[in-house]
Amino acid sequence: MTTQELIEQIKQKKSFLCIGLDVDLNKIPKHLLETEDPIFEFNKAIIDATHHLCVAYKPNTAFYEAYGIKGWQALEKTINYLNEKHPEIFTIADAKRGDIGNTSTMYAKAFFEDLAFDSVTVAPYMGKDSVEPFLAFKDKHTIMLALTSNAGAFDFQTKTVEGKELYKQVLETSKEWEHAENLMYVVGATKAEYLADIRKIIPDSFLLVPGVGAQGGNLQDVCKYGINDRVGLLINSSRGIIYASNQENFDQAAALKAEKLQQDMKVELDRHLEVLN
Amino acid sequence: MTTQELIEQIKQKKSFLCIGLDVDLNKIPKHLLETEDPIFEFNKAIIDATHHLCVAYKPNTAFYEAYGIKGWQALEKTINYLNEKHPEIFTIADAKRGDIGNTSTMYAKAFFEDLAFDSVTVAPYMGKDSVEPFLAFKDKHTIMLALTSNAGAFDFQTKTVEGKELYKQVLETSKEWEHAENLMYVVGATKAEYLADIRKIIPDSFLLVPGVGAQGGNLQDVCKYGINDRVGLLINSSRGIIYASNQENFDQAAALKAEKLQQDMKVELDRHLEVLN
Repeated sequence: MTTQELIEQIKQKKSFLCIGLDVDLNKIPKHLLETEDPIFEFNKAIIDATHHLCVAYKPNTAFYEAYGIKGWQALEKTINYLNEKHPEIFTIADAKRGDIGNTSTMYAKAFFEDLAFDSVTVAPYMGKDSVEPFLAFKDKHTIMLALTSNAGAFDFQTKTVEGKELYKQVLETSKEWEHAENLMYVVGATKAEYLADIRKIIPDSFLLVPGVGAQGGNLQDVCKYGINDRVGLLINSSRGIIYASNQENFDQAAALKAEKLQQDMKVELDRHLEVLN
Repeated sequence: MTTQELIEQIKQKKSFLCIGLDVDLNKIPKHLLETEDPIFEFNKAIIDATHHLCVAYKPNTAFYEAYGIKGWQALEKTINYLNEKHPEIFTIADAKRGDIGNTSTMYAKAFFEDLAFDSVTVAPYMGKDSVEPFLAFKDKHTIMLALTSNAGAFDFQTKTVEGKELYKQVLETSKEWEHAENLMYVVGATKAEYLADIRKIIPDSFLLVPGVGAQGGNLQDVCKYGINDRVGLLINSSRGIIYASNQENFDQAAALKAEKLQQDMKVELDRHLEVLN
């Protein structure tokens, strides 16, 4: 998918919501556990109920790998379902991968070709030759960790490296990489006040923003500092939506939560981006 | 497996060789492609031929994920084969994972419980709460990237952070984490001269050292600067061993390469560690 197609979808749906499909069998409704593939059945119900309210889905691979082969099969069924039923939706494999050159190419093939995701998240620690293999795939997107939403972000990411914070070095350095136009970045909503500085370095890039809701981030602040004239934001919510209820009507409860966020996003879009109306 | 059991194995085999099982279907002998599970058949043959020469095997998960469900099944069969036939051997899932707390716990379950590896590699960028969930598993080992063997290591890892290089900050900071005794570190052989400094920070820890051979690292230098009185080194070789030949006798060719390395390691052990004899 091209970035322009993503932007068109945002304009049409008045939403830049990404729903995290982080399926924990201990948290899903009990009646699904009797089905053959509870993870996929859960995802399918969530997707069917929310696809008109969001522009992206983001399964975190950890939640699938934890269930071994069955988990990987559920991931494959989920991405196939999305690509068949809702090809307009942007898909993110939240995998946080990264390895030396030829090995990163294998990861890129896993997520871009075998599973046919539109994008994958990667970690920056190993530098340019660990990320460029992902960037080489046309119309695929590589979403690199910059400033994450967890407490550990302050261990290294915000430490000063040669005059500026590490996450800013990561942003600036990566702008020079080949096919940098295929980069997006993860910036946690819990650090919305950092977004103004971040936008000085990467004014045009899309940001994937976790941490709104459950982790305490604030949608208005993220938009105030992070929105740009292509919108440039994907706001992720996982637990706050998919675990809104663990009763039989969990999908409708999820849709209500997603709609609330979508409505808030519409207000922000109208406020910041008159040009989109 | 406890660290002491690993050390005992090293003493017994006079080897601290780790063999990387990075299976690329384009590189393995053609006759294996006709079998039902070429990846596993390749690994099984390599393991059968080399298990007395090495103390660890390290499948890099990228090479399995690239083949989807079949790849994941081959990884599962490989670790099960190792745990059944050679329970004394240390197993490393080279996965370079890392995510926020509860998600890292899912990854830890995937590799320590579902697949029953002895250890997993992780990335440090997200800090303490992304790594401690792995450290909480008893008699399991978490091998954190410190200074990698690729060119991109110079993009961020060697940059100066508050007076010292980032990789040194990573080493020092991680020493304070809960269950830090379960940490090992990745340090590339191509940067052997850095090992003396690294040993000042973490004198007792085990280091997983890639980059000997194919990437130009030198065994003698790694031992000179990196060995400690518990040996403290696992030297990895992947391509140099497993792709020694692509003919029918590939397993014996691999064993010859492994034996050469093991013999060189025996010399180093005898030289540095008279106490082991």
